[in-house]
Amino acid sequence: MAKAISMAGIYPPIPTPFDASGELDLKALARNMERWNRYPLSGYVVLGSNGEFPYLSETEKLTYLEAVRKFIPSDKLFMAGTACESTHTTIALTKKAATLGADVAILITPSYYKSRMDGPGLSNYYQSVADASPIPVSMYNMPANTGVDMAAEVIIKLSQHPNIIGLKDSGGNLAKIGEVVRHAKTGFQVLAGSAGFLYPALCMGAVGGVLALANIAPQQCCDIMSLFKQSKHDDARVLQQRMIPSNTAVTARFGVPGLKAALDMLGYYGGSPRSPMLPLPEAQKETLRNILVEADVLQV
Amino acid sequence: MAKAISMAGIYPPIPTPFDASGELDLKALARNMERWNRYPLSGYVVLGSNGEFPYLSETEKLTYLEAVRKFIPSDKLFMAGTACESTHTTIALTKKAATLGADVAILITPSYYKSRMDGPGLSNYYQSVADASPIPVSMYNMPANTGVDMAAEVIIKLSQHPNIIGLKDSGGNLAKIGEVVRHAKTGFQVLAGSAGFLYPALCMGAVGGVLALANIAPQQCCDIMSLFKQSKHDDARVLQQRMIPSNTAVTARFGVPGLKAALDMLGYYGGSPRSPMLPLPEAQKETLRNILVEADVLQV
Amino acid sequence: MAKAISMAGIYPPIPTPFDASGELDLKALARNMERWNRYPLSGYVVLGSNGEFPYLSETEKLTYLEAVRKFIPSDKLFMAGTACESTHTTIALTKKAATLGADVAILITPSYYKSRMDGPGLSNYYQSVADASPIPVSMYNMPANTGVDMAAEVIIKLSQHPNIIGLKDSGGNLAKIGEVVRHAKTGFQVLAGSAGFLYPALCMGAVGGVLALANIAPQQCCDIMSLFKQSKHDDARVLQQRMIPSNTAVTARFGVPGLKAALDMLGYYGGSPRSPMLPLPEAQKETLRNILVEADVLQV
Amino acid sequence: MAKAISMAGIYPPIPTPFDASGELDLKALARNMERWNRYPLSGYVVLGSNGEFPYLSETEKLTYLEAVRKFIPSDKLFMAGTACESTHTTIALTKKAATLGADVAILITPSYYKSRMDGPGLSNYYQSVADASPIPVSMYNMPANTGVDMAAEVIIKLSQHPNIIGLKDSGGNLAKIGEVVRHAKTGFQVLAGSAGFLYPALCMGAVGGVLALANIAPQQCCDIMSLFKQSKHDDARVLQQRMIPSNTAVTARFGVPGLKAALDMLGYYGGSPRSPMLPLPEAQKETLRNILVEADVLQV
Repeated sequence: MAKAISMAGIYPPIPTPFDASGELDLKALARNMERWNRYPLSGYVVLGSNGEFPYLSETEKLTYLEAVRKFIPSDKLFMAGTACESTHTTIALTKKAATLGADVAILITPSYYKSRMDGPGLSNYYQSVADASPIPVSMYNMPANTGVDMAAEVIIKLSQHPNIIGLKDSGGNLAKIGEVVRHAKTGFQVLAGSAGFLYPALCMGAVGGVLALANIAPQQCCDIMSLFKQSKHDDARVLQQRMIPSNTAVTARFGVPGLKAALDMLGYYGGSPRSPMLPLPEAQKETLRNILVEADVLQV
Repeated sequence: MAKAISMAGIYPPIPTPFDASGELDLKALARNMERWNRYPLSGYVVLGSNGEFPYLSETEKLTYLEAVRKFIPSDKLFMAGTACESTHTTIALTKKAATLGADVAILITPSYYKSRMDGPGLSNYYQSVADASPIPVSMYNMPANTGVDMAAEVIIKLSQHPNIIGLKDSGGNLAKIGEVVRHAKTGFQVLAGSAGFLYPALCMGAVGGVLALANIAPQQCCDIMSLFKQSKHDDARVLQQRMIPSNTAVTARFGVPGLKAALDMLGYYGGSPRSPMLPLPEAQKETLRNILVEADVLQV
Repeated sequence: MAKAISMAGIYPPIPTPFDASGELDLKALARNMERWNRYPLSGYVVLGSNGEFPYLSETEKLTYLEAVRKFIPSDKLFMAGTACESTHTTIALTKKAATLGADVAILITPSYYKSRMDGPGLSNYYQSVADASPIPVSMYNMPANTGVDMAAEVIIKLSQHPNIIGLKDSGGNLAKIGEVVRHAKTGFQVLAGSAGFLYPALCMGAVGGVLALANIAPQQCCDIMSLFKQSKHDDARVLQQRMIPSNTAVTARFGVPGLKAALDMLGYYGGSPRSPMLPLPEAQKETLRNILVEADVLQV
Repeated sequence: MAKAISMAGIYPPIPTPFDASGELDLKALARNMERWNRYPLSGYVVLGSNGEFPYLSETEKLTYLEAVRKFIPSDKLFMAGTACESTHTTIALTKKAATLGADVAILITPSYYKSRMDGPGLSNYYQSVADASPIPVSMYNMPANTGVDMAAEVIIKLSQHPNIIGLKDSGGNLAKIGEVVRHAKTGFQVLAGSAGFLYPALCMGAVGGVLALANIAPQQCCDIMSLFKQSKHDDARVLQQRMIPSNTAVTARFGVPGLKAALDMLGYYGGSPRSPMLPLPEAQKETLRNILVEADVLQV
């Protein structure tokens, strides 16, 4: 079953909208989704890092997943971030997400006990969850946030599991992506985890990307991929290079507060992140605006 | 109210016992507590890093805190780890822990969005929680697990809050401990976060320690502190030096699996950590046993 | 003058051969160079990291540069690693290297006083050396060895200097390479610093690479580049992927001892690195051999 | 012979004075030494990190060592930093330093090839140099600058060498210091590498310190040690705590430029560091001055 699912394409990891009192704002969600749905995105990642997943209670997560399901057309993929630190709680949440209609569970590495999250620890985790999950599983490597960096050989071994269909890699190590693509099971799907290296990742064999930038520049992200597929490499490179500062601004440089500020500038609903993350200060908003304007992501 | 509470002394951050099926084992807890209570410990830290706090559901945490309360005599301090990544969920859990009888909330730094957990982010977090908490709050700095290292100046500013009474510091930076002791508000209490540097931390002005080693060598840990208080520095140094390899074994080297294996060797209930942490392999158990025997922590 | 020099193409950073007593072995050098010269390499990097530059005295460096000059045909570029920690000593060595016939000085970031090697410190260094150098200068960013990682904006500013013609980047951050290519002065040349990401770096706008792997697989490295230039992207990707494990083996995994052992296996002169680096142990040589055979770098 | 040398006490790692044109200023050296000699320091470390050793040519190093020798009274120890990256060049420089009258060679870990500087690599280095050196050798662990952190077990094994008499440790890991003191050979001498943790290091068994702060506050550093020896622990703690901000200012925070600026403020000769290190900017000098005044290091 798992093998039939294609993860090819571009996915925004959507930010979770909160209202002024910090509660889930499902109307704002509806408005954003309606607009994202106009683009040739292949689907959505819900409750990823940009979705502030560690800041939601389990009850909120379920409410939110149920709400998002309604806004995702059946021809687009619904990937849900259901990882918890422990195997047991991850399995429980993954099963509930499946019941609520998620197509794929995308699972970030557990990381609190970093020194134990080596090959055997991570293998224990992913195999147990993949065994129990009613939906296919994608691994998710995000060293900047977790302090854990999955080794190529661990990924390659885990790719043999029939219910593990892919990997989102945000580390940006292109040699690792190339090694995984070559040595993992046939059909194993790697997604670039940042728009800063989408085009070179496609060149190395990735099949798409989960990109914070796709929230604010969905067409440009899809264009990079379609130019690549049409072998228009010069055009792909130029567009890729142009997107880098905007991508850096809504990821490493200004984080989720930057991404939400950018959404507001573009007419989406951004709002504030939950505490203890603070909204982007005004001076940094100005810097952000200039970067988006210069790249033509924001028209003035 | 907060100012009246003394955190001076030695506290084991107790491991959470799970039975063979991975469920909370409250009988094992009772057995361990009964034995720990024979030692001159000043209290307990419950749901700390050694308590596998990220691996328990909220419901389990409440069940467990309620159970532990019964085993802690009224003259010993009950410190509960109630931090979650978000301010809102931390406040909610802290209030419930207070209702269940916790004396102090010990709060590890939020860490998933590392780059945003700078001075303003951490100040936002601790001030908001301390404002809302019905019980006094202690900060908890644990860079090895979180990847976040609170700066001395941030700690010093936060020490001014009337409901923030102390800091557990596991980073081992003695200059930072000295700077905090000197510049924080009068009466602010610093606890060493590892038995590897308990004695020098006391020399620098710490008032005690939260020590994984105190689970398996409670008397020796208390002895280091009482030798220090009696100005028997040579004896304190010798005992401190003797404890270092055992401490390293149940912390940095073998982690929670090592600590639980050591408990089993000593006649406490250790059991297995929850998945994805794996039990200590046999070969490493042998190494651990030799280290404990050599330091006279384990008699043979 | 500087602008006329093209750094496009593939360059091996040649290991410095030492005889059994640890002295420079210029006969072995001659033998290796004679063989490397048969390949369509664009030139050589001499006294780079793989050349054990920190292990040679200044006198040895001059002797060696003079010797190498004789073996480099005039249509190939001679890049000399002439960086020292201080500006003054770097200028002195660079002038001498120019006198001995080096075409380009390739300068690794100073790194001992890491915390001072920020934008102003590095700008001070590269501007001063570029002002004084009679030959064009290329910057060289190698965070794994130096612990210093030049920021894109610092590189971009320095690219404006008329005598700074390029950058070798070994960090593998493709987004940074793309940003530098787009925003540096026209004609500024970026070289990939590792064969693990040569092909994606070319896709992002790099003009070639300085590649440890080019010492033992010169034809394959040149082929990746020529396939790229012919827009044979699928073939380039396949060859790139195939080369990754061999590249990892002679760089991050086994280092200079691995590279020298591989040279010996392939009929070049490898020999031992200087002390305190130790020769590759036999068991690791066996692993290395298997990796090279599997990639067809070594025929059996 | 080696065993007879005591390294107990306080040593400033003296900054190397350069004149306005960046050349060695031996008159300034004379002036500084004359003044430092009035304090109960046990000796001097010359060509350490604070002496900008990587910025001097070999010829300059020899000139400088010869000059310093004249200013060091025979009852004070002359420790010379003679480490180079390679074993061969280190031995050569150490022999010359011995001829020029250095009493002890203090050798920082080689670090450029970090991944090879593990136990076997470092053992190879220190054993070879200690075998060949006519004067006793002290190891020097400085992870902040080198990126290499010697493991306790490697230090302990190397302590068995008859010509290796001690260790300067700047890492600040007190547990490691305690473990080394307990398990190294009898008489092995550990020196604290930073005044930020001098007093707790003495408590753990160190016999003194090599302290940047001892250049600008020699009496206070000596006082901490003598209070410790008189078992006046409360006074030692208070003085230690008071010195921490000044120490941080001339080490981690403002580096060698900060130390040289502080010397100038105190009437010693500081001058500028060599390029590419830049002199401390005026605004930071003001901050530095305030810190020194507040701690009474600088009287106004």
